[in-house]
Amino acid sequence: MGSCWGQNLKLSLFGESHGPGIGVVIDGLPPGMELDFEAVRRYALRRAPGRTPWSTPRKEADEAEILSGVYAGRLTGTPLAALIRNTDTRSGDYRDLQVRPRPGHADLTGRERYRGFADPRGGGHFSGRLTAPLTFAGAICSQILQTRGIRIAGHILEIAGIRDLPFNPAQPDPDQLAALADKPLAVLDDAAGQAMAAAVEAARLAADSVGGIVEAMILGLPAGLGDPIFEGLESRLGSLILSIPAVRGVEFGAGFAAAGMRGSEHNDVPVIRNQAVSYRTNYSGGVLGGISTGMPLVFRAAFKPTPSIGQEQQTVNLETMQEDRLTVHGRHDPCIVPRAVPVVEAAAAVFALDLMLGSGLFTAGGRESCHE
Amino acid sequence: MGSCWGQNLKLSLFGESHGPGIGVVIDGLPPGMELDFEAVRRYALRRAPGRTPWSTPRKEADEAEILSGVYAGRLTGTPLAALIRNTDTRSGDYRDLQVRPRPGHADLTGRERYRGFADPRGGGHFSGRLTAPLTFAGAICSQILQTRGIRIAGHILEIAGIRDLPFNPAQPDPDQLAALADKPLAVLDDAAGQAMAAAVEAARLAADSVGGIVEAMILGLPAGLGDPIFEGLESRLGSLILSIPAVRGVEFGAGFAAAGMRGSEHNDVPVIRNQAVSYRTNYSGGVLGGISTGMPLVFRAAFKPTPSIGQEQQTVNLETMQEDRLTVHGRHDPCIVPRAVPVVEAAAAVFALDLMLGSGLFTAGGRESCHE
Amino acid sequence: MGSCWGQNLKLSLFGESHGPGIGVVIDGLPPGMELDFEAVRRYALRRAPGRTPWSTPRKEADEAEILSGVYAGRLTGTPLAALIRNTDTRSGDYRDLQVRPRPGHADLTGRERYRGFADPRGGGHFSGRLTAPLTFAGAICSQILQTRGIRIAGHILEIAGIRDLPFNPAQPDPDQLAALADKPLAVLDDAAGQAMAAAVEAARLAADSVGGIVEAMILGLPAGLGDPIFEGLESRLGSLILSIPAVRGVEFGAGFAAAGMRGSEHNDVPVIRNQAVSYRTNYSGGVLGGISTGMPLVFRAAFKPTPSIGQEQQTVNLETMQEDRLTVHGRHDPCIVPRAVPVVEAAAAVFALDLMLGSGLFTAGGRESCHE
Amino acid sequence: MGSCWGQNLKLSLFGESHGPGIGVVIDGLPPGMELDFEAVRRYALRRAPGRTPWSTPRKEADEAEILSGVYAGRLTGTPLAALIRNTDTRSGDYRDLQVRPRPGHADLTGRERYRGFADPRGGGHFSGRLTAPLTFAGAICSQILQTRGIRIAGHILEIAGIRDLPFNPAQPDPDQLAALADKPLAVLDDAAGQAMAAAVEAARLAADSVGGIVEAMILGLPAGLGDPIFEGLESRLGSLILSIPAVRGVEFGAGFAAAGMRGSEHNDVPVIRNQAVSYRTNYSGGVLGGISTGMPLVFRAAFKPTPSIGQEQQTVNLETMQEDRLTVHGRHDPCIVPRAVPVVEAAAAVFALDLMLGSGLFTAGGRESCHE
Repeated sequence: MGSCWGQNLKLSLFGESHGPGIGVVIDGLPPGMELDFEAVRRYALRRAPGRTPWSTPRKEADEAEILSGVYAGRLTGTPLAALIRNTDTRSGDYRDLQVRPRPGHADLTGRERYRGFADPRGGGHFSGRLTAPLTFAGAICSQILQTRGIRIAGHILEIAGIRDLPFNPAQPDPDQLAALADKPLAVLDDAAGQAMAAAVEAARLAADSVGGIVEAMILGLPAGLGDPIFEGLESRLGSLILSIPAVRGVEFGAGFAAAGMRGSEHNDVPVIRNQAVSYRTNYSGGVLGGISTGMPLVFRAAFKPTPSIGQEQQTVNLETMQEDRLTVHGRHDPCIVPRAVPVVEAAAAVFALDLMLGSGLFTAGGRESCHE
Repeated sequence: MGSCWGQNLKLSLFGESHGPGIGVVIDGLPPGMELDFEAVRRYALRRAPGRTPWSTPRKEADEAEILSGVYAGRLTGTPLAALIRNTDTRSGDYRDLQVRPRPGHADLTGRERYRGFADPRGGGHFSGRLTAPLTFAGAICSQILQTRGIRIAGHILEIAGIRDLPFNPAQPDPDQLAALADKPLAVLDDAAGQAMAAAVEAARLAADSVGGIVEAMILGLPAGLGDPIFEGLESRLGSLILSIPAVRGVEFGAGFAAAGMRGSEHNDVPVIRNQAVSYRTNYSGGVLGGISTGMPLVFRAAFKPTPSIGQEQQTVNLETMQEDRLTVHGRHDPCIVPRAVPVVEAAAAVFALDLMLGSGLFTAGGRESCHE
Repeated sequence: MGSCWGQNLKLSLFGESHGPGIGVVIDGLPPGMELDFEAVRRYALRRAPGRTPWSTPRKEADEAEILSGVYAGRLTGTPLAALIRNTDTRSGDYRDLQVRPRPGHADLTGRERYRGFADPRGGGHFSGRLTAPLTFAGAICSQILQTRGIRIAGHILEIAGIRDLPFNPAQPDPDQLAALADKPLAVLDDAAGQAMAAAVEAARLAADSVGGIVEAMILGLPAGLGDPIFEGLESRLGSLILSIPAVRGVEFGAGFAAAGMRGSEHNDVPVIRNQAVSYRTNYSGGVLGGISTGMPLVFRAAFKPTPSIGQEQQTVNLETMQEDRLTVHGRHDPCIVPRAVPVVEAAAAVFALDLMLGSGLFTAGGRESCHE
Repeated sequence: MGSCWGQNLKLSLFGESHGPGIGVVIDGLPPGMELDFEAVRRYALRRAPGRTPWSTPRKEADEAEILSGVYAGRLTGTPLAALIRNTDTRSGDYRDLQVRPRPGHADLTGRERYRGFADPRGGGHFSGRLTAPLTFAGAICSQILQTRGIRIAGHILEIAGIRDLPFNPAQPDPDQLAALADKPLAVLDDAAGQAMAAAVEAARLAADSVGGIVEAMILGLPAGLGDPIFEGLESRLGSLILSIPAVRGVEFGAGFAAAGMRGSEHNDVPVIRNQAVSYRTNYSGGVLGGISTGMPLVFRAAFKPTPSIGQEQQTVNLETMQEDRLTVHGRHDPCIVPRAVPVVEAAAAVFALDLMLGSGLFTAGGRESCHE
């Protein structure tokens, strides 16, 4: 298994890259919300392929058909199923890969796991395309969270070694965050963005690829959510972020940099602001002992370079059991990080709604609308 | 909740730092193994406090009493419950902390989460002491794994910015790994170890603390284990590692460094070795698409500096709702990284046994003995 | 939530009776089986409405479209999603029921649970129509089980107080069982079947309805499956059977009759048959201590009479908060027991495959075909 | 596995009948309640052995030591672990049973399940003694529920075919219910109780045993709790009741009798009482579509006769693989139904608190006391 997630919200993903369709069943959504489906569509488009020079030319509208869980424009509270039909599929590109697996892909491990019966076309169930239904789910969760004052923001912190400005974890600038969603590259520093775009283009011309880091924040999360030990916020959110294809690491607050800090520096000093407890800094990234502090929940995810590259590569031939060479054709992004930003945000939204639903904070509620 | 973990093996941790005791119930262990309880004891001692100059002087034998699940020296297959009594408790040290919470601790978040009713003594259920039953569970899982040729090795990769040599992820040296468990500081490069010890001592003298990084490997894991998407190995192991107190990040294979690599560099080239598929390099850290490749599963965990430091710190007074100052007395490690190595290994062992049990590879089995 | 089930197999049901469609995602199916989709279709038809005089005249082909999880005619091992479009929907029949809830239905409780936002048309997600995707899942599980020698048989034990012959729990007659699937009414004693049909017709003419009991057996289950206490076979199968709409009770082996027996009578005597342990009788219904004995797993489910009846009934008016009267129009079975037989069998198949997958008995396998 | 249960409350049971001890870890209890431990003790005593002529003469105080989760007399909200030491153990009684399994016991199935390594003494983990920690957990849950106006009542509906008066499911008499807990035999009709006691004594003298039925109600459950399909109240409570040793069936409301009713009779008519919706009858047993109606949740559990009987029985000899004879010595109840009443009530309390915790109704709360 592996396609189900959640405690208070259950996500069940399905589909293969070049099968009839992909989709998701979301069980546990709160009843009564009027969703803004046009906003869901815009959210999904940020991830959809074929929109920018650096993304795969595969054209997929990624329009989701709602099969259940919505009545008269509102969430019913029963499972919401959504189906995204695959349209632009070219299975011919992939047939050879069962014999000569692509380096850096799940071709070999998937073959082992499913004893050779997995759908090999386009990576099948392992395809990055499965992030489309996750993004759809995140778009819906995100709208619901906004009715409770919770917002999620993400940006490209790094591509090919080029760094954007980091988020201010203690006092983020709302205007800066609001501007991110409309930018073609989600960066705070546009000059860094241009350098990133150039680096991606250079990789593409070299028939190669580059990786990067996405940084994101959940704003407005109340203090006191989460559980100790195995259900701390880092474990729960981390497990979801690490399930996004190509993610190689996740860190919270100061993250790996905390390893080089002294306690006197890393300890966030509690202070009184507006008669309530707050913190002067946010090295903890909004979580202490697995429980939310009320400060922004800050985390970062490292993405490896796209494994599908145009240049000829060494591999093995599983029929001859000899070493062999391979050129991957197909259509692939030289850097998936720009399209990964909404996926990371979506995963954070799914996590945050699951968390909020477990907190008993959705019992009141009623005729909210997600239209702005 | 938050104190249960596992799919095929269920761990249920309980206890508070200064209550009657701490412990664990482990459900799902395979029946029939003859455990080496002396080895379990040695394993636990590597984590136990009071053994080195840089660890808290709190003396706890951490002897676990087996309450169930073992009969005639062998695992029965029914739940194994173990109890570690708390003996050296000094509750007086902690009383004031309900009013003036310690910076960097869960005092404030735990108070919010449990509405003021959590046991405040020594961090209660949030105490690092809860890693003792986890380590006990890991010691048992580790022995069982060894009967299937699976071994776990960990070392201190970094303390206070001082780096040990990294593991060779593709072809680890068995002698080097075997030597680690007996060293007072688990490092490959003893000179680095001495520098680390000096840095820890310097922090202690400054009434401060330092953090670090633990690197670990699971060796011998068969290819083809794990599941796509939400139950990939990174998600499952990551969630467990992120549940260890003080961990701020986790990465697999090349990890965050992968973000700066090119695809042509990061893709591990498959090769034929002894008529079987292997890989020339191991940047993927033994996992592709969430499924094991058969190479060592390599990961790293970043630990923050111990939040309990001896110097006076700023905090808030929750009675006066004014800013205040606080000096934490108690007994604390200036660096928990050395004692964290067996904890990380234990978490990896719990994860790996849970994984193996789900793979159907323990159905045969029988009268194995964990004695060497 | 409530639409997910399973440990080793995860079912996720979705849909509303009069929405775009209903369906199921099944995660965890073993890879490699070649399914006989024609047999799946025949299995589903046994449940489908509109086939007999005593079933609702609603016409639904109940054709399932496979969206994922099947490649080249074989199970891939990744999630299988199936969609059944609703075609013959008549929403006008149901609009009034939000004000005047139908006695014996979930109209009132669903309204309370979902705060008035659930799809009210045809019972929405509470409709018995949701048993169609469960039956589809059971048809697939049943085929897989047959490759392991496990078969499921069910019959109508009772309708309107008229009793069929009971199964012989210790030594069932294979020919008798084989004949059941092709009969219009699944009974062992055709005379009893005729009396049942007459009783159903009498109830229909009286604008009333009748209930009954389904008895089923799982044959070929190996001894030693299951777990003690909370995961005993009775708990696991029972929870699934009790989730079928209209089921009011479930019993195993001698069931409620065991309450009136003496120990010396109820204890099944172990005997040696063909050099193996067997039992002379099967009052335990194939399960002792929650674990399978190797004898047929025998159980019964009691179904209440269909709540939708044609005669005028008393109810409340939720607008006026006065007592009121109601005549349910729509299209309803005067007895759902005949169509419930394949649903009970399907639930048993889902349970049995989930159980077998957890036993490690599907690791071998490979190119099995479910074609006979 | 099998020793864990719950969604919002996690129970983890451990222990063997003649090992060091048995116990439970309960995770998810609401923080802040002041428990009445004397009442917990009285509750447990109703189940404890050796108190009546018809119970096993094994003497166990069943005193639970609280290891965690309680501080200053109040629940902390972190896991509550409790340990009941086994004191009066006589292992010699059981040694032979590994060769000649007892009819009607889990000796053979447990042997198969655990490949011969389970603790054979007194049934080990399969012993009815494991209901002691479940009863302890139920005693605590019951107290918490009482602070929310929820009460549980149970009685012996039948022993050896002798019937008590049934509960009035629609309008139970509070005085009648209150009197039950103090009676030596929990019956409404004391004459029936005397006849039952005589029947038990007759069975004892015949070295035989008898079974029976326990009927119970949960009173005060709000309407609208539960989920459709797999998480309906019948599935959730049913799975827990079916996990009690010796239970062979469970039914809700009219139960199996519903199979013989007409829809016009079984449909509970909604009525207006005190400006709110209620029901004239309660054949549904307080649950429609898996969701609570607000009426008493009524259910019954059938218990088989105790399998341990004093008379010589036929069995098999697993060494010679010949049929053999066996006389079970040990100490056993000729009827476990009287002691099962508090166990059924405890299971209902665990279920009801798990349900309430998922409903968001415990977020307010605070300094409640469970002392009356």
